[in-house]
Formats: sequence, structure tokens, C-alpha cells
Amino acid sequence: MKSFVEYSSDCDFPIENLPYGVFSTKNNPQKRIGVAIGEEILDLSAIAHLFDGPLLKNKQDVFRHDYLNDFMALGRSAWIEARNKLQDLLSISNPTLQEPNIRSNAFVKQNEAIMHLPAKIGDYTDFYSSIYHATNVGIMFRGKENALMPNWKHLPVAYHGRASSVVVSGTPIRRPLGQTVPIEDADPVFGPSRLVDFELEVAIFVGGPPTNLGDAVPASKAYDHIFGMVTMNDWSARDIQKWEYIPLGPFGAKNFGTTISPWIVTMEALEPFKVPNVHQNPTPFPYLQHNESCNFDIKLEVDIKSPNGTVTTVCRSNYKFQYWTPQQQLAHHTVTGCNINPGDLMASGTISGEAADSFGSMLELSWKGTRPILLKDGTSRKFLQDDDEVIIRGYCVDGGYRIGFGSCSGKLLPALTK
Amino acid sequence: MKSFVEYSSDCDFPIENLPYGVFSTKNNPQKRIGVAIGEEILDLSAIAHLFDGPLLKNKQDVFRHDYLNDFMALGRSAWIEARNKLQDLLSISNPTLQEPNIRSNAFVKQNEAIMHLPAKIGDYTDFYSSIYHATNVGIMFRGKENALMPNWKHLPVAYHGRASSVVVSGTPIRRPLGQTVPIEDADPVFGPSRLVDFELEVAIFVGGPPTNLGDAVPASKAYDHIFGMVTMNDWSARDIQKWEYIPLGPFGAKNFGTTISPWIVTMEALEPFKVPNVHQNPTPFPYLQHNESCNFDIKLEVDIKSPNGTVTTVCRSNYKFQYWTPQQQLAHHTVTGCNINPGDLMASGTISGEAADSFGSMLELSWKGTRPILLKDGTSRKFLQDDDEVIIRGYCVDGGYRIGFGSCSGKLLPALTK
Repeated sequence: MKSFVEYSSDCDFPIENLPYGVFSTKNNPQKRIGVAIGEEILDLSAIAHLFDGPLLKNKQDVFRHDYLNDFMALGRSAWIEARNKLQDLLSISNPTLQEPNIRSNAFVKQNEAIMHLPAKIGDYTDFYSSIYHATNVGIMFRGKENALMPNWKHLPVAYHGRASSVVVSGTPIRRPLGQTVPIEDADPVFGPSRLVDFELEVAIFVGGPPTNLGDAVPASKAYDHIFGMVTMNDWSARDIQKWEYIPLGPFGAKNFGTTISPWIVTMEALEPFKVPNVHQNPTPFPYLQHNESCNFDIKLEVDIKSPNGTVTTVCRSNYKFQYWTPQQQLAHHTVTGCNINPGDLMASGTISGEAADSFGSMLELSWKGTRPILLKDGTSRKFLQDDDEVIIRGYCVDGGYRIGFGSCSGKLLPALTK
Repeated sequence: MKSFVEYSSDCDFPIENLPYGVFSTKNNPQKRIGVAIGEEILDLSAIAHLFDGPLLKNKQDVFRHDYLNDFMALGRSAWIEARNKLQDLLSISNPTLQEPNIRSNAFVKQNEAIMHLPAKIGDYTDFYSSIYHATNVGIMFRGKENALMPNWKHLPVAYHGRASSVVVSGTPIRRPLGQTVPIEDADPVFGPSRLVDFELEVAIFVGGPPTNLGDAVPASKAYDHIFGMVTMNDWSARDIQKWEYIPLGPFGAKNFGTTISPWIVTMEALEPFKVPNVHQNPTPFPYLQHNESCNFDIKLEVDIKSPNGTVTTVCRSNYKFQYWTPQQQLAHHTVTGCNINPGDLMASGTISGEAADSFGSMLELSWKGTRPILLKDGTSRKFLQDDDEVIIRGYCVDGGYRIGFGSCSGKLLPALTK
């Protein structure tokens, strides 16, 4: 497949990708839906009338909104129709968008665009689905014998997160204030968290029509509700978490910011990078069973950019290390009858691999602060320092092209002190 | 104060109350904002043009929406202006709404109205702020010595809940399916929860302008962000919760439904029923301190209506048993920099008192199923049975009038089995 838009072979956004996002520009502050192609964005609000297929010709308005929820609600057949249309329109053999007036008005350079959240996120849920991450944390806090909790291999453990503080890549995150207990068993103190961490995650955006309260989606039908994926940094304050989380789980330790990549990569773009699901023992209950693979070879990397600008890659992980698939996550989420809506966000939890350099958080990389990580500028880190920027990349590669998520980054600002 | 709308002295909705809700009727399915007065609803969309005070005259559109969020966003001065205007318009001495055409068109009988969620709930948070409830649960699961967790008196413990499954009073709730471990240390089984419970709660709706990510609201300024209160039933599946909740807190055990009363009682209506805050020892950190009282004498009752129609009041509690105030809850929620929006919902957690008949859940009333509760029809309950309806009432009374929340009810339907 060849597009008339030119890009290099290592570009995140070839014609095989076509991820969706919401952007604006200085000249036109109206938020609008776009698709990344090469180093440009195709403005779908400008070409909505070209979606003339059977499923979209009466739904063109979904491309004129400032969020993707209504497009997400249409379901997979409509998403595929849109993708086919876009690949056709962007193909070198189709003159429509190459007409000079359209070529200059319907495209925007990515470096001139301001990216926004791609959807109104109704609810955000965070899972805990990497067995290596859960085991690492278990060993640190409970010892090797009791590393994995008894429930972990029976169900995809999760908690409800805070939707309001999910922000798009590039938004600075303020080091949180909170209560911590720096000296074991002493009284708590109040002040800036000293143990701010990143968590390398990938999240799915829910699509398809809303489900009804009381209805469940079995894993075998859950794929229809998965629109696409983003990379995510689930910023965490480990010291706040340790003091607050018993018995009801993480709260303030997680609600000060969650960063996602601006581009939602569709499942259709990821399809060629499917790998077998991880073998599960014990066999999960029927509501969690599905035959087809829904695991992906997505390479994940985390950089820390020090305040002086030096960039060090501190983690190389992969989405395929997830034990529970997104279908199983979605099935477990709804098995109680919990209703889901297009635009809901469900994250993987920290994705760590087996190797020590594949751990997806500073907590694990520095093994609870006992093994400082050396950065390229000669400084070291146990946890994040003020003005560190965390940059997450995700991409799939084969011989021919690269399917990328763009960058998911955020700088940690110093705490506000009055 | 006397209204031209007639009602009895034990009516929930005198002119001193004026709670806000969203309703529709068979003849007019358009959702619109209303205020309860006596046994009627004043349709604010029909009289929006009468809000001619300095703060509202250019904001009348907030009364023409099908949700209260934009009115909530205006802040306390505007809420007070609206209340004063409504009390004036509903007063017997003001002829405006008594004009026959307006009287018949701007009012709807409550028993002819369909109530809806009063706001788009961005995020829902559940606290755990009753010391009696936390102590009871602690004794049951950890023994008397370790009943209260070490953090409990230092911060208002909370978890993020599921916003999508918050429903308005009258919505049936389906008994959830899920994983449980009926025999200690045996393998989990899958099926309908056997231990479905109610939780008697009161929740605040957040108002005022949205806060920015990174900014905190100290307790001393949190009152400006409290629009009003609803009663709530936080349906819970105890057996699902027990198996799933370690280490990240309740998930499926709580996300199958949360019922709120349709009427939001404003803080202005509750003002005469203020009682002193509970004494707190240790003294909380400064961000949690506020001088004024924000505790209220709100009588709370829970009925179980058996499938045969017999009604038994199983719990008589009171909002004043809360240890942490709503200001403190809101301050703790935002101290990390978590942003809040008008329409966010923050619930108290189960409100139990000291007396055995004031416990706000079946878990406590039946003391973990060891003391069955006798209902008036001769049957007994440890937890809820299929087709039981749970009805929560909240009200304040003094000699002259009653400020009520109306009813917060829901019937537990049998589990779906395929």
C-alpha cells in the first residue's frame, strides 16, 4: 500500500496505521477529529462528506464532533468501512485528496497541531494483568512464597480509577502532596510525595453501543467492544499508596494524573502483530474464555529525560507479557452486570517482562529503591526527580512498516508548597 | 414562609426545601430540570426567563438543560439567588405562578413524573467515613484489637467507584454473577452472589467551577464546592468483594449498581439542621481542618419490602454519625492535585451508628450472617433475597417542617442465568 503522503519507513504513522485523535491548531482552535498519516494529520471534519459507504453515509456527523465517542459507538463494521475508505483516499492512486485545494486545507502538520483527549472518558479502569509485575511487587512487599495473591490467576484484578485526571501526552504533572509514613510505625507526615513513579501501561478504548446495566459481555464477544489502544503512564505515588491503600485500594496515590498517547491505534492496524495468548493455568471460568488470540507484539519503551535534557531509556518491555487479554478484562468488568460505554478506558496495569530491564516502573527497576538506576548524564534515580520527563513509546514492526503510538510523555513538576 | 402550593406538615418538600431534580412525563418525554414542592414539581424550563437576578439573568439557559451540571457550576451565590427567587415565586403573596395558565402548565404532579439522574456524573467516589461502620467491619474481619486500620483516623479513606452504574431511585438492580469462595481456602466457584447487601449512604454533588489538575481545595474552602446531597444505596456483593478485593480494593462487588435519590437537597435547605462536627483525635493535618460545622442531623431509615409487599424498617441511623465531614472528604480528594468537576459524586460510605439497629448494612445488622433479622411477614434475612426492595429515606425535622430527600429505592432482581 502506498500513500501520496510521503514518510520514511520508520515513521509511526504509515497508511497501514491510521490512528485516530482529536486536535486543534493555533489558527483554528476548534477541536476536530483527525487521522495521523506520516508527519501530517488528515482533518476528518473537512472530508466527512466523503464517507459515503452504506454504514457511514448517514452518520457523517460523527466525524464533525470534537470527540470520538460517537464514532466509537458505531461498532466494528463501521470502523472497518472508515478504515477502508481512508486507505483508499490516502492511496497514491486516488486523486481526490491530492487536488491542491484539499491537499492544503484538509491536512495539518503534526508539529503545528495541539493534541487533545481523543474521547470523553466516562469511566477509567485499571487492571493488574502482568504476571511479572504482580510477582515483582508481591515479592517486594510479601516475600517470594506469597508473591501472587490467591485470586490473581483466577480473575483479572482491577480497580476503578479517576477519569477526570486522565490527560493527553504533553500535559505536565504536579508532584502530589499527601500523607506518608517515612518511618515505619511512626505517625504520618504531610508533604510532597518522595516516591513518585511511572507505570508503563497500554489501555483499550471501549467501542460499540453502550451495554445495559445488568448485562454481561462474555470474553468470546468482547472483541466487538474494543475500539483501539493507547499507551499510558499511570503516575503513582508509592509512599502515599502504601499508607492509604488498606483496605480499599489506591486512591490519592493514583488520581493526580494519568497520561495517554494522543493517538488511538485501531485493532485493525494491530491485527498483523497478533501473537498467541499466554497459556493460563488454571483454566479460567467459561465467561473468561475465548478462542482467538488477542495478544500483540507491541514493543514498549520508557525514557527518562533529565532536567538537563539527557535522555536515557530505562525500560524495554512488550505488551505480549500480559497474562490476561483485553477481552478477559472486559468480560470480567461486565460479568456483574456493570454497564460499559463507548469512550470508557480500560488499562492493562504495569507491563513488566521477566528481564530486569523490562520492568515497567521505577519501583521494580530500582527494586524498591535498593538498586539506583544510572542515567546517561551520570546522575541516578531510585524514583522520579522534579522536572524529569517520562516518555513512553509503543510500536510494532515487521519488515515493511512500523505501527506506532507516537509519544506519551509528561514532565513531573515540583510540588506546590504554600 | 407559606406557599400557594398546598401540602401537609409532614411533606418532604415544603417551600423551605426546594430540591432539584430532572424529570420527564409521558406527554413530554423531554428531560427537564424541576424543583419539588409539595406533591408537585415546578418545571424550571418553563419559567427560566423569570430568573432575572444579577447572577442568573444571563445564565437562564442552565435551567433549560436536561442535567444540572451547568447550574451546579455557577457556584453558591448563584444557587442562593435561585433559591431566593424560587421561594419568592412560590410564596402565597406572589401572584406570578398562580396565574391559571402558568399554574397548570409549569407544574407537574410528582406521581405523574418519571425521574432521571439529576446530573451527568463525571466521577463517583465512595468514602468510608463512619467510625461505627469501619469499626464493625474491622471487628468482624480482624478482631476487636485491630478493628480500625492505622490510617483511618488520619485521613478519610476512600476508593474510586464506577460512575456508569449510578442509577436513579426505582431502577431495578440485577443480582450479580461473579467469583466467590464459599468454602474457606477451596477453589473459587462462579455463579450468582449469595451475599447481596445494601449500604446506607448520603452523597454530595460537587458544584462550583471545575478545578485545575494540580490544584488542591483545602477543607476551609471546600464548602463552596458542595452543591447538595442525595441519599444513596451502594449495593454490595460481600462474597465477591471478599475474594476480589486484595490488594486493589472493591471492584465487581460494587459496580453492578448504585442507587441515588432523584432529589438533590441543597446545603441551604439543610443549614438549619447543622450539628457540631464529631470531635477528632488525633487533630487532623491542616489541609483537613475547617472551623465551621458541616455535620447535619439527617434521620436515615432503611426499609426492606419483602416480595409479598410487607415493609419492615431494618435500620434507623443518622448522617451525624459521620466522623469525617464532606469538606474533609473533598479536601483529601483534591490534596494530591486531583481535579474535580461539577456533577462529581462523593459518597459518605455506610453510615452506621452505635446502636445495633442503626447499622447501615445487612452485613452489620446480621453480624456477618450470624443474627438473622426478623421481618414483619415472619421471614428472616441475613442478606437480601431476590425481589426484595430496599427503600432508603432521609429527612430532617424540627417543629415546623420537614426537609426530606424523597425515596431512594430499588428492587433486587434474580440473577440472569443462561
